[in-house]
Amino acid sequence: MSAVPESAAAPAIAGLGAIKMEANQTAAAERPLAERMRATFRRGQEALSPRELRQLLEQLQGIVDPRVSEVEGGRRAKAVEAWYAQASPARRRDLWLLMSEQFKADPEKVKKAQAQFAAAVGTPDEGAAEVLYRRATVSPRRRLLQRFSADADGIRFLVDLRAELQPHLKGDRRLRALDVEMEYMFSTWFDVGFLELQRISWDSPASLVEKLIKYEAVHDIRSWADVKNRLDSDRRCYGFFHPRLPGEPLIFVEVALMDDIADSITPLLDEDGAAADLARATTAIFYSISNTQAGLKGVSFGDSLIKHVVETLKAEFPRLKTFATLSPIPGLRAWMQKHAPAELLAALEQPLALPPRAPARAQLMSWAARYLGHELENGKPCDPVARFHLGNGARVERLNWAADPSPKGVKQSWGLMVNYLYDLKRLDKHRAMLAQGQIPMSSAIEDLYG
Amino acid sequence: MSAVPESAAAPAIAGLGAIKMEANQTAAAERPLAERMRATFRRGQEALSPRELRQLLEQLQGIVDPRVSEVEGGRRAKAVEAWYAQASPARRRDLWLLMSEQFKADPEKVKKAQAQFAAAVGTPDEGAAEVLYRRATVSPRRRLLQRFSADADGIRFLVDLRAELQPHLKGDRRLRALDVEMEYMFSTWFDVGFLELQRISWDSPASLVEKLIKYEAVHDIRSWADVKNRLDSDRRCYGFFHPRLPGEPLIFVEVALMDDIADSITPLLDEDGAAADLARATTAIFYSISNTQAGLKGVSFGDSLIKHVVETLKAEFPRLKTFATLSPIPGLRAWMQKHAPAELLAALEQPLALPPRAPARAQLMSWAARYLGHELENGKPCDPVARFHLGNGARVERLNWAADPSPKGVKQSWGLMVNYLYDLKRLDKHRAMLAQGQIPMSSAIEDLYG
Amino acid sequence: MSAVPESAAAPAIAGLGAIKMEANQTAAAERPLAERMRATFRRGQEALSPRELRQLLEQLQGIVDPRVSEVEGGRRAKAVEAWYAQASPARRRDLWLLMSEQFKADPEKVKKAQAQFAAAVGTPDEGAAEVLYRRATVSPRRRLLQRFSADADGIRFLVDLRAELQPHLKGDRRLRALDVEMEYMFSTWFDVGFLELQRISWDSPASLVEKLIKYEAVHDIRSWADVKNRLDSDRRCYGFFHPRLPGEPLIFVEVALMDDIADSITPLLDEDGAAADLARATTAIFYSISNTQAGLKGVSFGDSLIKHVVETLKAEFPRLKTFATLSPIPGLRAWMQKHAPAELLAALEQPLALPPRAPARAQLMSWAARYLGHELENGKPCDPVARFHLGNGARVERLNWAADPSPKGVKQSWGLMVNYLYDLKRLDKHRAMLAQGQIPMSSAIEDLYG
Amino acid sequence: MSAVPESAAAPAIAGLGAIKMEANQTAAAERPLAERMRATFRRGQEALSPRELRQLLEQLQGIVDPRVSEVEGGRRAKAVEAWYAQASPARRRDLWLLMSEQFKADPEKVKKAQAQFAAAVGTPDEGAAEVLYRRATVSPRRRLLQRFSADADGIRFLVDLRAELQPHLKGDRRLRALDVEMEYMFSTWFDVGFLELQRISWDSPASLVEKLIKYEAVHDIRSWADVKNRLDSDRRCYGFFHPRLPGEPLIFVEVALMDDIADSITPLLDEDGAAADLARATTAIFYSISNTQAGLKGVSFGDSLIKHVVETLKAEFPRLKTFATLSPIPGLRAWMQKHAPAELLAALEQPLALPPRAPARAQLMSWAARYLGHELENGKPCDPVARFHLGNGARVERLNWAADPSPKGVKQSWGLMVNYLYDLKRLDKHRAMLAQGQIPMSSAIEDLYG
Repeated sequence: MSAVPESAAAPAIAGLGAIKMEANQTAAAERPLAERMRATFRRGQEALSPRELRQLLEQLQGIVDPRVSEVEGGRRAKAVEAWYAQASPARRRDLWLLMSEQFKADPEKVKKAQAQFAAAVGTPDEGAAEVLYRRATVSPRRRLLQRFSADADGIRFLVDLRAELQPHLKGDRRLRALDVEMEYMFSTWFDVGFLELQRISWDSPASLVEKLIKYEAVHDIRSWADVKNRLDSDRRCYGFFHPRLPGEPLIFVEVALMDDIADSITPLLDEDGAAADLARATTAIFYSISNTQAGLKGVSFGDSLIKHVVETLKAEFPRLKTFATLSPIPGLRAWMQKHAPAELLAALEQPLALPPRAPARAQLMSWAARYLGHELENGKPCDPVARFHLGNGARVERLNWAADPSPKGVKQSWGLMVNYLYDLKRLDKHRAMLAQGQIPMSSAIEDLYG
Repeated sequence: MSAVPESAAAPAIAGLGAIKMEANQTAAAERPLAERMRATFRRGQEALSPRELRQLLEQLQGIVDPRVSEVEGGRRAKAVEAWYAQASPARRRDLWLLMSEQFKADPEKVKKAQAQFAAAVGTPDEGAAEVLYRRATVSPRRRLLQRFSADADGIRFLVDLRAELQPHLKGDRRLRALDVEMEYMFSTWFDVGFLELQRISWDSPASLVEKLIKYEAVHDIRSWADVKNRLDSDRRCYGFFHPRLPGEPLIFVEVALMDDIADSITPLLDEDGAAADLARATTAIFYSISNTQAGLKGVSFGDSLIKHVVETLKAEFPRLKTFATLSPIPGLRAWMQKHAPAELLAALEQPLALPPRAPARAQLMSWAARYLGHELENGKPCDPVARFHLGNGARVERLNWAADPSPKGVKQSWGLMVNYLYDLKRLDKHRAMLAQGQIPMSSAIEDLYG
Repeated sequence: MSAVPESAAAPAIAGLGAIKMEANQTAAAERPLAERMRATFRRGQEALSPRELRQLLEQLQGIVDPRVSEVEGGRRAKAVEAWYAQASPARRRDLWLLMSEQFKADPEKVKKAQAQFAAAVGTPDEGAAEVLYRRATVSPRRRLLQRFSADADGIRFLVDLRAELQPHLKGDRRLRALDVEMEYMFSTWFDVGFLELQRISWDSPASLVEKLIKYEAVHDIRSWADVKNRLDSDRRCYGFFHPRLPGEPLIFVEVALMDDIADSITPLLDEDGAAADLARATTAIFYSISNTQAGLKGVSFGDSLIKHVVETLKAEFPRLKTFATLSPIPGLRAWMQKHAPAELLAALEQPLALPPRAPARAQLMSWAARYLGHELENGKPCDPVARFHLGNGARVERLNWAADPSPKGVKQSWGLMVNYLYDLKRLDKHRAMLAQGQIPMSSAIEDLYG
Repeated sequence: MSAVPESAAAPAIAGLGAIKMEANQTAAAERPLAERMRATFRRGQEALSPRELRQLLEQLQGIVDPRVSEVEGGRRAKAVEAWYAQASPARRRDLWLLMSEQFKADPEKVKKAQAQFAAAVGTPDEGAAEVLYRRATVSPRRRLLQRFSADADGIRFLVDLRAELQPHLKGDRRLRALDVEMEYMFSTWFDVGFLELQRISWDSPASLVEKLIKYEAVHDIRSWADVKNRLDSDRRCYGFFHPRLPGEPLIFVEVALMDDIADSITPLLDEDGAAADLARATTAIFYSISNTQAGLKGVSFGDSLIKHVVETLKAEFPRLKTFATLSPIPGLRAWMQKHAPAELLAALEQPLALPPRAPARAQLMSWAARYLGHELENGKPCDPVARFHLGNGARVERLNWAADPSPKGVKQSWGLMVNYLYDLKRLDKHRAMLAQGQIPMSSAIEDLYG
């Protein structure tokens, strides 16, 4: 059986007949390729045979062959995509390893460029020589990714491939080269400047609304009635889109327009609740932010998204004064299980049933204020959501009891939720405080911790 | 006078008060910045004072300050753009030099990354270490360009800046670092995969049609009637557009649909000629290809453009069989003045007046066939247009006497024009021939040279 | 209480202060308006008082006041729309009656125009005089409708008003004038030439897909999964849209692309069924057609829709050869209960449980063939669905046992469904046959009836 | 030779074989059609023969044949359109006459409907009977026009046909029936509610901008530079578009945004003048309004256009306070030649050369104030432009000396231009004044007339 479906592979392979082996291949010849790969993966029936592995490698090399036009290179990349679509998991891993290991920079070229750079240091050519040096040391792996990306569906292919790759990174460090290279390329391709902020509404394509249901990561969307409520007249939903991934939100945020800072998620998710009166809205509550593409891990959009959304909202609703979140505290329970006294944890068994004046309530609030407002881990807030918003320049504003009574909310933080406030005039001041190890917070939070 | 207009500069500079100097700045302090720059440019009244230079440098450093959010960095970049828009040529050159010289990679970081990479060689981490090494060695200049690009008009700003920079590169090698870095960034941002092929027609925006008039580089467009004729029912015009430069063609090609290979540009540019009957069209003639952005020098679009256009045309007109150009031979006269006998040159004084059987005609045709079909310069065709089409896989097909009787045509090539044929099944074969030093041509051309 | 909400009414009524009463009003004065209206409706608390009635009439008259600009007239219409939105059912009926009864053509004008026309008969002016006569006799009611329609939401208002009016027509013949006038206007405004055929797909706005769920009249859509299945890759859904009712399908048809004529609705509605292979599709099955706007009763779109859809499908899938429906037979049971023997009806108690060779099966098929193929009512097919498709030129093609096993299908026609075949070359021939009282049918149907 | 090009006609005529003659045809048979038509037109070689006339009539009748589907009717209409496109002027006139004369309402039907209506008078059915009566009396000519309009290009065909018809109306009164019927239909189809206000800018399609050049009726556009200036950043141009005539402005207005009421057209048409600063604009000057479609004569758009544009401008520029025109006075010279003393006319020979204090200047201003502010013709302003703006509710604001020094301006009004002011709060008051025979004007104009 061939490494590539007959129809797609035949011409591609035929076209590669005359391609000579490059440096990497010589090395591969000394220590046969299949053997090296076998070293890691336990290769079963469904893995590629040595001959198939070599054929696939030749196909990949054909894509970046400098004698081949960009258009032809793209066509060859498409053939590999077609092969991948029907390949078994083991064969896919073979491809990842080939892409990760067989497309390193040519050491000869690197050495030569280094010498040229060294010679230019101290001369007026130093600057250009440095750039050319970097250019020369770029591995062919990068050109390989670029050729894939030229194809209409290529970016989709690469993003999905990297998502698939993620769970395997811990198990095989050799895959990291591919992963890091992809992250690097993606951070350029998905540069914020390329992203388009689009409103998502009930008039958006059903296929897009369906994706909200699929991707929502904070408060699960249970039904079409649920998502319709979140796109009601008193809500806004915005996503970042990329021209190369049409119809695919990379990240999206759900906003409620209200007349006060929300203290509970319950009314926001109530499908039967009446829409708020927009004419009285003074406050925008960001109650859910979800990244959608595991394959874009390490490429960050959130800060920009929130700031663009704030500008868009202010333009539409000049009366908006307050921008805040209603956020979960996903790391609270795990942290408290390490640090809080066992009696308190026991007293919190049924948090929603605690009477208003129960001492455990006040104690939990105090511990939570400490967790969010005072504890740092490697100089950063411990809680991942806190890390995100505080990193953007927000401050810890208010803790809300029983704000998320769902099982997930109780499990994460005994139902507590927190508001982070985006005070637009102090974002940079807050970032500077944080950089000096001081978490910005309201006096109410300070008082809680006492 | 401040380096930056008061309104824009004041907050930006105020916000920078606390920023400490980095390595580069220390060096600068030792050998004052202004002095170094004065070394090259003759600095007149309108150049920046030492204080202003330092302020501008601090502004640029503020843009890439890691403690500043991407959004804030973009805002600072915008302030520099506003300053640039009203700056004198001398001050603009100051900015270029600052960007070129003051944002080199940190040698300490490079050294550390080199060591880490060296330690990983031979281990499974080698691949990733190499990528991380490259990542670490990226100069802050690149981040600077990225921050500019985040702003809506930033790409436009950078492309225009680089266009302005071009004529100064020969005079000051220190500017090359900026130029090469920009070319490098642009080749990623303007990756073919991001480009959108759009048809340009008489129904396109007037502002876009006006750009055809402005950018047409082969056969000048004299009037709106001229351009309307080139967008008539028997013509097609396609351009590549980039999502970050809306309404701006990066390159465009003009095509005539005919029933035979064109042998003269005259009827194609005749505004009063009737449109050809599309039902009988068998041949697409590419009679003009123009790059439009001097700032994108070194980023190539032509090959892809032609191939995409061929596919688009075949889809719309399944009867099309022949794809060819009608091209100028811009380098012919200069080359012949070096190589051809003086008598021939003298006999060609009035080429359009030569009778059909004049010996000088046959001789010119033969010399032209030699120029196009046999002469190589550094292994490549001498003529720049030949270099482009043959590099794409076309072949030299036919020479046409008096095909461009305009003064420009006579001046370049005594009115001769050439057809390059794109035989879609042989493009790669032709490229391979060319790589081996053999120029693909028709037997008619071969016979001419005899 | 005022006839119009204070905010909207105040300026409108103020602006009407100076308007004098016209002919109609004089008549009204003789026999008080409220009294006449009271004659029919039992007027409760919520009906308009005599003073309010007069105010409302004045408002309506203000809309068509010839001294008022079109724009001002439109603004006044909008005020009435706002009043209507919050009016009680009784008050709404008051408005209908005013519109129906108080805006008749002026008898004086009609008389005068008649005389002018009579004088022109036989002269070259006869033709124009006739048109002018018609123009003169147009009632102010029509101008009233036109003024409402000028407002952006006015067409929506009128269509909804007429839908609301429908159930009351039988009870009060005086409302018919308004109803017939609206039908007349709508048939011009919704002229097929204004309609735009649009494909509705899973990429259409969620709000539009939701309307399919709401409007589907043949086979109820039970869920979003159900509607998604009907918009799958092997389906097509098309609707007619009008520029004045954006996002609102006036009629839509659901089509399945198959390799044979469907004999059961079950697999078509199976959400878990795999999509058919489009490359093999030879047959388009129209399995549901729904009108959506009760207010457009009497304006017919169906014939055009099917013919446009057939053309659109042929362009996308040149291999399609057969166009047919899979249709319910809604009138079968009621008709058979009049004409078929009681024993047969009894034997059909559990039709889905009947064994293949049960005599009742053959008998039902025979009766159904007679019902669809031989029985006429006022010269037209008895069954409403048959009337529609046969009127379009289709023929009765095949009866399908147990094709719709749903309770509704069993109730209407013991689960029987019928295919009507659109033989594109014979549509006009079939129409001609039908006009002569002969129902076109396949030989299979003929045999059944035998 | 056939009346219809062979390709189009053959199937259409073949399909008509079985159609029987209707009432009109019987009449035509008594007094042969061709003879009647010959009576008016002098019929040359290129006119239709009697046989061809009959064939064409049959074709037209086939279009409205009630036994034929709407789709088929539309197809037949298309065949006639194709015939018309290549028909000679004489043959086109034949078609007009057939359409005008041969599609009258059936007198029998009219009589019957009249009787039904008479019987319903005084009953609750009276209202509906009246509408049905009108419906019954509609001539088949109207259905004929509707069938043409169903075709995609049909509205374009009808509008152009009516434009072509205009110059012939005076010469042959029999054509008026067709003309009046078309005006009637167009006033419904082109109802303001269907029109879309679109901004026309330098980013609009070149083909649309070209239409401005073609249609501009007030101040001729001399070149693309001229039109570009009129679409500059300190200008706005808006047109009404209809969904059935895409890309075709029905009427358009050119607006300049200024800081004061314009007193001369010269700077507005100066291609080299700098654009005004939008931030300071307080005044919108409507300096040109052009109707574009002769075929839509009698259908009025201007009032609505101006009011929609005012709203649009106020939304974009909240600082705008004043809306006024700078208008020609096209009828001034002709009127003064009837009423003013010969000496004044003589003194105005070279108006632009008159010194500021020349008595003729003051006299002309006074006469112009009288012409615009006091003279009525049939109760309406004499000047056509005054009639339009005053009819919309504007007032005469200011006369401007040498405001249009072009030959046309001098010829019409010795270079005088006038501002009409749209005081948004007084439009209806002004209309009411005008209805009572009093022309609204500023005190400055009143003073001039003294």
